[in-house]
Amino acid sequence: MTRQELTRLIRAKRSYLCIGLDTDIRKLPKHLLKAEDPVFEFNRQIIEATADLCVAYKPNIAFYEAEGPSGWVSLERTLAAIPKDCFTIADAKRGDIGNTSSLYARTFFERYAFDSVTVAPYMGKDSVTPFLEFPGKWVILLGLTSNAGSLDFQMLDVALPGHAAGEQLFEHVLHTSQRWSGPDSMMYVIGATHPELFTRVRKIVPDHFLLVPGVGAQGGDLEAISKAGMNDQVGLLVNSSRQIIYASSGEDFAEAARKEAMALQQEMSRLLEA
Amino acid sequence: MTRQELTRLIRAKRSYLCIGLDTDIRKLPKHLLKAEDPVFEFNRQIIEATADLCVAYKPNIAFYEAEGPSGWVSLERTLAAIPKDCFTIADAKRGDIGNTSSLYARTFFERYAFDSVTVAPYMGKDSVTPFLEFPGKWVILLGLTSNAGSLDFQMLDVALPGHAAGEQLFEHVLHTSQRWSGPDSMMYVIGATHPELFTRVRKIVPDHFLLVPGVGAQGGDLEAISKAGMNDQVGLLVNSSRQIIYASSGEDFAEAARKEAMALQQEMSRLLEA
Repeated sequence: MTRQELTRLIRAKRSYLCIGLDTDIRKLPKHLLKAEDPVFEFNRQIIEATADLCVAYKPNIAFYEAEGPSGWVSLERTLAAIPKDCFTIADAKRGDIGNTSSLYARTFFERYAFDSVTVAPYMGKDSVTPFLEFPGKWVILLGLTSNAGSLDFQMLDVALPGHAAGEQLFEHVLHTSQRWSGPDSMMYVIGATHPELFTRVRKIVPDHFLLVPGVGAQGGDLEAISKAGMNDQVGLLVNSSRQIIYASSGEDFAEAARKEAMALQQEMSRLLEA
Repeated sequence: MTRQELTRLIRAKRSYLCIGLDTDIRKLPKHLLKAEDPVFEFNRQIIEATADLCVAYKPNIAFYEAEGPSGWVSLERTLAAIPKDCFTIADAKRGDIGNTSSLYARTFFERYAFDSVTVAPYMGKDSVTPFLEFPGKWVILLGLTSNAGSLDFQMLDVALPGHAAGEQLFEHVLHTSQRWSGPDSMMYVIGATHPELFTRVRKIVPDHFLLVPGVGAQGGDLEAISKAGMNDQVGLLVNSSRQIIYASSGEDFAEAARKEAMALQQEMSRLLEA
């Protein structure tokens, strides 16, 4: 999916919602545990109930990996159940030396046919660029994450030769990684828990899409981050996981998820018009 | 395995060799492709041929993940084939928000029974500490990696309030993470391609074990890093992957791997005596 196609999709659906499929077998409604593949069955019903309200799905790979070999079968089935007009994100936070990153890229882009994968920047250029060698696929690089630990390293002032005032590490990651590829194949993770920093982010990456986690269970404010983060191509994918998929633990879980997703979509529709 | 047990094992085997099981199905000797599980069969024979010469095995998770669900079966079988007196490392470079890191930890420590897992530091404290909640298990945190991209961010000067001269990001990661746990449950990845920096690393973490990749295919020098990095508990696990496991692509691959492992073990034995 190209950047233009993603923007068109967002305008058509009046939504920049990404639904995180953090599907934890310990949290599934009891009646699903009888299914042959409960994780897939849960995802299938969530997708069916929400696909008209969102533009992206983001399986969190940890949850599938935790189930052993069968978890990867559930993941593969889930990908097949996502409508072709939705963008897919492998939230895997990979990153390794070149030959290993190549292999991770091949796995997520070819075997599981994801559109994008989240990548950690610590190991630098040659840990990221192998993911950029797949035409039509995307790297979503961690910039500023939504968790408390984002303050430990991402917010450090880095001292750059020739610059009187330095910049913070996450800003330097945004600057440096733009030399590896542009806004048509890279996005950045910028957590909704830092609304005050979106203006600074947009100064560095005005055109990139931002994947914004942390709305909902983690406390981020949709309106604040939308006002500060939206660009003329929309440029935002706002993720919500637990708030939607665990809205009910009963037999009505899919209906309850739809209701939560619709509330977010309606607020997004309003913010897109504004 | 405790730190004392690991040191005793190293002295008993006169080896601090870790063998990286980066088992790529595309590189296996042809005659193994007929086996029911070629990846496991390769690993089993490598382990059988080298277990007396090394103290640790490090499966690189990317290679197993790349095979789809069956790759995780090969991984599980491989773990079962590693003698109980060898330390095991899941080279996974994980790191995510707390609830997700917890799940990754559970997967590698409980489902696959690894002794340790490599973790990326970019997301900070709450992305790492969930891995520290498993008694007897280890976090191996990325400090200074062996790849070219290690220069992009890890070597940045960070400006710290109250410090006239800052330190480099990798040094700050070593300093900061010592507040999360000590040398009995954390190790650090320090690449063999930076021998000149081992003295600085040892000033910050004198007692920790270091996992040192990059000897062999990546060009690191065993003698240089051993002289600069060894402490009175030995404190080093030096990894070699491709140089050992792909020493021959013929039917003699296990024998050839043994020969390469023995050459390293003999040099290590000499360096331990010196």
